[in-house]
Amino acid sequence: MTEKTTKTKKNSEHSIYIGKKPLMNYVLAVTAELNGGTAKEVAIKARGKMISKAVDTAEIVRNKFVTNTKIKNIKISTENLTNSEGRASNVSSIEIYLTTEKKSK
Amino acid sequence: MTEKTTKTKKNSEHSIYIGKKPLMNYVLAVTAELNGGTAKEVAIKARGKMISKAVDTAEIVRNKFVTNTKIKNIKISTENLTNSEGRASNVSSIEIYLTTEKKSK
Repeated sequence: MTEKTTKTKKNSEHSIYIGKKPLMNYVLAVTAELNGGTAKEVAIKARGKMISKAVDTAEIVRNKFVTNTKIKNIKISTENLTNSEGRASNVSSIEIYLTTEKKSK
Repeated sequence: MTEKTTKTKKNSEHSIYIGKKPLMNYVLAVTAELNGGTAKEVAIKARGKMISKAVDTAEIVRNKFVTNTKIKNIKISTENLTNSEGRASNVSSIEIYLTTEKKSK
């Protein structure tokens, strides 16, 4: 067993931002956080086209990997971004909060 | 002019399914439902890649068209579909429930 990351205990909320990596990378990252012990809540965050991947991630974790996961809350919002050409644009974003009920097996 | 209490719960919910049409088609459809009088609640539903467009639709309606819209609830789930080749596949889906607080104009 290797410890890859050092987690800060005071912050019980961990955020995972969905980007262009393969879907299963994020599924495994969320699963690791939920099973890792310190995180009781994981926030999956995504913007624009990545929103559907965020929902896929949450659903795969919930159905296949950590079956006691519950969706605590889902928020959608609009963020104002400035792109590389200097133009402002509005982008939708999503935040999916997952929690697990810790049970001693 | 306004009938507030005669609606039944089932009829008061209108669903709009997000597909491949341009985004603004759905924005206008949702806006029309919310302003139309009969619908106090509109459900925006989408599957797969269309999930991000559903979030965009909800956000544009809320920020630009019907500013007293509130997000009542957001649900995500997995649907089991059989594609044209006969293979089963799981597809994520989202349902965004919007409501307006009707005020006498």
